[in-house]
Order: sequence, then structure tokens, then C-alpha cells
Amino acid sequence: MKTKEEIIKEVAKNEKVSEEFVKKGLHEGTIVIPYNKKRPKDIKAVGIGAGLFTKVNANIGSSPAIADLSLELNKLKTAMEAGADTVMDLSVGGDVDEIRRKVIENSNIPVGTVPIYQCALDSPKRNKSFVELSVKEIFEGIEKHLKDGIDFITVHTGITKNGVERLKNQKRLTGVVSRGGGLIIEWMDYNNKENPLYEYFDELLELAKEYGITLSLGDGLRPGSLHDATDRPQVHELMIIGEQVQKAREKGVQVMVEGPGHIPIHEIEVNMKLEKSLCHKAPFYVLGPVVTDVAPAYDHIVSAIGGALAAYYGADFLCYVTPAEHLGLPTPEDVRIGVITARIAAHVADIAKRKDAAEWDHRISKLRSKFAWEKVIENSLDPKKAKEIFSRYPLLDTGVCTMCGDFCPLKKTKKILTQ
Amino acid sequence: MKTKEEIIKEVAKNEKVSEEFVKKGLHEGTIVIPYNKKRPKDIKAVGIGAGLFTKVNANIGSSPAIADLSLELNKLKTAMEAGADTVMDLSVGGDVDEIRRKVIENSNIPVGTVPIYQCALDSPKRNKSFVELSVKEIFEGIEKHLKDGIDFITVHTGITKNGVERLKNQKRLTGVVSRGGGLIIEWMDYNNKENPLYEYFDELLELAKEYGITLSLGDGLRPGSLHDATDRPQVHELMIIGEQVQKAREKGVQVMVEGPGHIPIHEIEVNMKLEKSLCHKAPFYVLGPVVTDVAPAYDHIVSAIGGALAAYYGADFLCYVTPAEHLGLPTPEDVRIGVITARIAAHVADIAKRKDAAEWDHRISKLRSKFAWEKVIENSLDPKKAKEIFSRYPLLDTGVCTMCGDFCPLKKTKKILTQ
Repeated sequence: MKTKEEIIKEVAKNEKVSEEFVKKGLHEGTIVIPYNKKRPKDIKAVGIGAGLFTKVNANIGSSPAIADLSLELNKLKTAMEAGADTVMDLSVGGDVDEIRRKVIENSNIPVGTVPIYQCALDSPKRNKSFVELSVKEIFEGIEKHLKDGIDFITVHTGITKNGVERLKNQKRLTGVVSRGGGLIIEWMDYNNKENPLYEYFDELLELAKEYGITLSLGDGLRPGSLHDATDRPQVHELMIIGEQVQKAREKGVQVMVEGPGHIPIHEIEVNMKLEKSLCHKAPFYVLGPVVTDVAPAYDHIVSAIGGALAAYYGADFLCYVTPAEHLGLPTPEDVRIGVITARIAAHVADIAKRKDAAEWDHRISKLRSKFAWEKVIENSLDPKKAKEIFSRYPLLDTGVCTMCGDFCPLKKTKKILTQ
Repeated sequence: MKTKEEIIKEVAKNEKVSEEFVKKGLHEGTIVIPYNKKRPKDIKAVGIGAGLFTKVNANIGSSPAIADLSLELNKLKTAMEAGADTVMDLSVGGDVDEIRRKVIENSNIPVGTVPIYQCALDSPKRNKSFVELSVKEIFEGIEKHLKDGIDFITVHTGITKNGVERLKNQKRLTGVVSRGGGLIIEWMDYNNKENPLYEYFDELLELAKEYGITLSLGDGLRPGSLHDATDRPQVHELMIIGEQVQKAREKGVQVMVEGPGHIPIHEIEVNMKLEKSLCHKAPFYVLGPVVTDVAPAYDHIVSAIGGALAAYYGADFLCYVTPAEHLGLPTPEDVRIGVITARIAAHVADIAKRKDAAEWDHRISKLRSKFAWEKVIENSLDPKKAKEIFSRYPLLDTGVCTMCGDFCPLKKTKKILTQ
């Protein structure tokens, strides 16, 4: 395993920043590096946060209907090849222990989970339903994932009785759309008790500290439609999470914050700034945002719009959305498209956030102006796909493409402009 | 043919605004309705501009390498079915007269062209190269399209000797990437004369007035890379165009303005506001904007990011970009994807621009919260594609999808939230 110094050095190198910068970010909590110190094999050290490149996460995982280890490993491989920075195994079907362990074994990037899913899944083994689990049993379920070597976990710590009351009063169009949030609310309602992850947050911090993992404070009350965006339950939860960020930092636990979800384009800026303010500049990990509800099958594109804008306004970490979102479980090809699309959004934002990010664009445009087609394609985000489209038609003898042919303006004016 | 009153009535109805609003916009020049009063058959009246829904144009057309009438008619049909508001026939290969006439015959939406392309294409028939054409011959080429019934034409009127000097001094990475711009600059250089479309702009206005068409003042010096965005040649041209907008309005000619092109995300706002200011709030018709140069094969997605943001900041009309952009001529399937993607961008912006635009989103989310899957799909932007993904896996007995199965949070919490 890498030492803390080696990890910092690696992150600094990959991010083209100084080691001091990374150390300062870690110290202040504006940067996290998900890395379980008890993980069974080494991975790439991935820094997430202020001043670093925007990162992309790919969700994989089985569902009750489709549980196939080889399919999940295929998705993992596809996600890594497409350039995902992290992966989350959200399996809720089949032998989830085996799937998770194999994902950890085969991943060379940080792996996250939402342990509470498995708490629910395994509760019948204890002859209980999820809501009958004790706090101790829930924490055992969480630790199980940490023991396996998981690098970051989503915990829905910000839901409180008070927040659920606000939720009831809000009369949302699409209630609760977070799986973890739904489970917590169900547990709270049945037991008439406070959210155990909220009440025993200190114990959660101790656990996180033991394994050196990063807590991702989940937005269990995130809006599931534009109608519900930026409402009181959402903001209340974020406020609670802000308090927890402060506690985590005091205990030396790395923490990031999860965000929506469905947000109209004109509310993205305020959502990003609100998180940075309420949560003391903790790294912000957003799902989408989905900026319209009308385009199932294209939610990867919808989320690229939202994600680019979110990252521009301060989000540090984009959870990809695939074409299958809102329709079913993604296939490996959906995973590939999802990662590529989220990477586009991340890079588009990085161009605004970091001066050096556009060097890639300038390199490609320079090649383009020289009609160095093969090199443009080689250097592009997805050379295989670019090559596929480019190869449909033969290049013209004159070296120009089939779009304009000899009308190519670049070619026509080159001599005139350099007179 | 429809009378002016009928056209206004139709636009007002489609846009859910009053006839007075449309009249005022037409009068002030903030709204245009491309519609050649001498066109051979009737079309839908399409309003473009302030206070109306954001519109989408699809470029079709042959190239020197691929010139096939039936392919172009297939693209036209595909574009209309996918929901394009207008189409531009940019043919530069094969029998372009026949292609254009057949496109007009088969289109039920406004059709635009860039007549100067054909001037160049047909110059050998006059035993000349394009640069040897007289001003009269160029104007004859333009009028030919208007006689056929074209509703709007792109004319690169804003390039001047002074602008070309600025261009030379700028030392751009990607010079000129507008086909029309390239031709004009070539002509100016060869003849050592001012741009004829600039010098004889009044004659152009008379021609436009005679046919009642809309002039689309083209951005011949638009940036072709992020590196060249928002530079002096680009802004100089926009300034000239602003003066021409004023002249056109004085003569009662409908006019819109074309804009870039490649722009980094953080310069989109300024570009939109600059156009609205320099061009007296004339409708802004943007290509993309392309917010990164690194993703050929995904430039439809890149442009959805740019287009949504551009329209949010004031662009009125989005020219689609297809996955084939920067690689070759688009296929009908590229056209379909291009139109759908641009429509997503337009709608995302409209949600911010018009209170009523999100009603569609709310309707779908309400259906979603009721698990009315078939109706969600029916009402979505591309029901066929959504159905295709949804049908990969069977719906579970309990009515939930394969993403979460019985972990469905919407289902789990519904009862609790309505207690």
C-alpha cells in the first residue's frame, strides 16, 4: 500500500499542482482522496476537490432483476477504459458480497458503495425486515464494506425527523427518489426514532477514521423532478450536512457532500454556491444535474448540460448518468457512453476553472488546422468512435473531409491570411 | 399562401403569446418569421426571437463527394420528424438546383440556404472561377434561390477589408472555418475590393424586401477553436453586422444574426449579451456553441451544453450540430440525433426563459411518480428511443423498473409522506 506521502505525491503529479497545494487542501477539507488504508490491493490515488481537475464517477451494480457477476465486471472494465476516475458498486441483487469483492479485486481506481443497501438486502438472513434492524446491525453492515476495502461510502446522514416533517409539508411532486433516503425514512417511521446515521454520526466518524476512508454525505432528500428542486427539505438536509462536515473535519475524517439531482438550469449556480457556503467548501459530488425531466433515453446528454454548468460553478465530482437512467439498469455500452459524456462535461468546466485544461483543445485545433486527421482522431476524447465516423467516407485526394470538400474554408484562406 | 395576419395568428397560437406581442416583436425587429411570399407551397409559420420558444435548425445538403437527392430528402424527412423548426439546404454537390427545389417541395417548415455556395459551384458554367464573378453575377445567384421560394438566406455581409486586416493581425489558430466567409475573403483578395455583400448591402435589402424573406447575417469570421473565441475579428464583424441590422430595420427587412461557433463555457454569456447589445436585440442564431474542441464524434453533446447555455443567455435559434461534425457529412441517423439533442438544449433553456415551458416536465414527473411508465414514454421527447431502452428488460410484477426493483424509494415512501 502507498504511504500518505506517496499518495499526495501521486495526486500532485496527476493534477499538475504542488504537493503543498494538495496537503493544504486535505488539511482544510477542500480536497479528499478516497483510499481505504486496509484495502487488499493498490489503486490509483485520485484527488477530488478545489483546484483539481473535475472527476467522474461511474455507478455500476446488479439489481434484483439482473444479477450477474460477469456483467458487472464487464461494466467495471468498460468504465475504467472509458476513463472513469472512480466507480461505485451499487449492487442490490445476487451475491452482492461476491460482486463487491470482485469489483475491488479488479478495479484500479477507488471504489465506493452505499452499505445501507446491503443492510436491507441481508436483513432476511436475520429473520427481520430492514426497519427491524438495530442500530448496531446497521453499523455492522457498514463496517463489512470497509473491511472489504471500500474507499468511500455514501451515508444519508442529513435526514432528520425535522427534515421529514418539512418533506411532508412540502407536498412534493416526486417525493423521495434516493434509494438510501427511502430506506432511512422507512426505518425512522417504523421505529419512530431519529435517523441512526444522524444520531450516531460520531460513531460513523470513528469507523471512517479507522479505515481512513472518505464519507460521502448523501442527499437522501434530493429532488426527483424540476418541480421539487431547491425546496425546503433539500436545503434543510444540506444545512444538517454542513454541520456534519464541520464535525468530520474536527475528527480528521475526509468528507464530501452529495448533491442533486433534478435542477433547472437557472438554479444550478445557486445550488453550487449554497453547498460551498453551507458545507464549508467541502468537495461537491453531484448526480447530473438533470436539467429537464422530458428526455428519458437522453439523460446522459441532459446531465452533460447540467454537469458542465455545475462543475463550472464549483462542483468537483460528477456522477455520470447513462442513457438508461429513469428506464432501467444500464448495459456496458450505456456505461461507456455515460462515462464519455460526463468526461466531456468535466473537461468543458475545467477549461473555465483551470488555465491549463484548454491545452488539449489547442493541441487538437492546431492539428485540425494542419489537416492532420489521423492525429486529431488519436488525440481526441474517444478515438475509436471518431475514427468510426470519419471512416464512413473516404478522405478526398486533397486532404479535406466530406463535409465541405474543396469548399474547405481553412484551406482556401490559409495562404491569404499568411500573406 | 397565408396572409400576414394569418401568419401572425399562427405564430401567436403556437408560441402561446398574444398576436399583439408577435406584431410588436416584428415591428421592433426582435422577432422574425422566415417566409418567402413567393414560395410555391405553404409551410408552417415559424417565429424566432425574444419571448418565443427557442428554435432548432437542421442543416442538410450534399457535398462534392456525396451528392444524392434521395439521401437529402431522407435527411429532410428525418429532421422534420425529429422536430426541427427549420431546415437549411447547404448542398454543394450534384444537381443543387434540383435538390433545393425538391427540398422546398417536400418541406413543411421554412427552408434556408447560403446562396453564395452555388455561385461558386456554378461559376465554371460561366467559364470563370468564383473569384472572377462580377457583383451582378453574385446577386443573380442569390436571387435564384429567392425565386425558388427560399425563406431565409445566410449572407456574409459583415466581412470588410478592415476586418480581414484584423484577422491577419490576430494570428488565429484556425483561421477561417466558415465556407461562405472563406469564399468572400478569397473574392476580396483576388479583386482587391470590398466585400460585395457589404458594399451593396442596400441592394441586398431591396432583394430581400421583394420576396419578404429573412436575412441571416452570417458570421464568416466565427472562431473555429476555443483558442480563437471572442477575438477582435469576430467582434469587429459583429459590430458591422449590428450596423446592418439597423439599416435592414429602417428598410423593413427582417433580419437575424448568426453567431459562433467555438466558445469556452465561461465566454458564452458575454457573447450572447454582446450580440444583443451591438445588434439591437436582433434574434441570435448560433451554431453550437462548441464548448470544447476535443470530442469529435460527440459534438452534438458538446453543442447541447453550449446551446443550452447560449439560449439561456439570450440566443433564440440553435443550429444543430451532429455527431459527424468535424469528421464528415452527416447521415440521416446523425440528423435525427442532432435535432433531438438541439431540442433538448432549447427546452432546457426555455424552462428558464418561459414559465410555461416546464409544464411538460411537471406532467412527465407526475406520471413518473404514479409509475405510469407507458405514459411517461409516450409523452417524452423521443418515445421510440425511450421505449427501446425501457423494453430491454421486463417490468417487474410490482410495477417498478429494473434500476432499483423493490428498493424503489418513490414506492417505499409514498404512504409515509401522505400520512
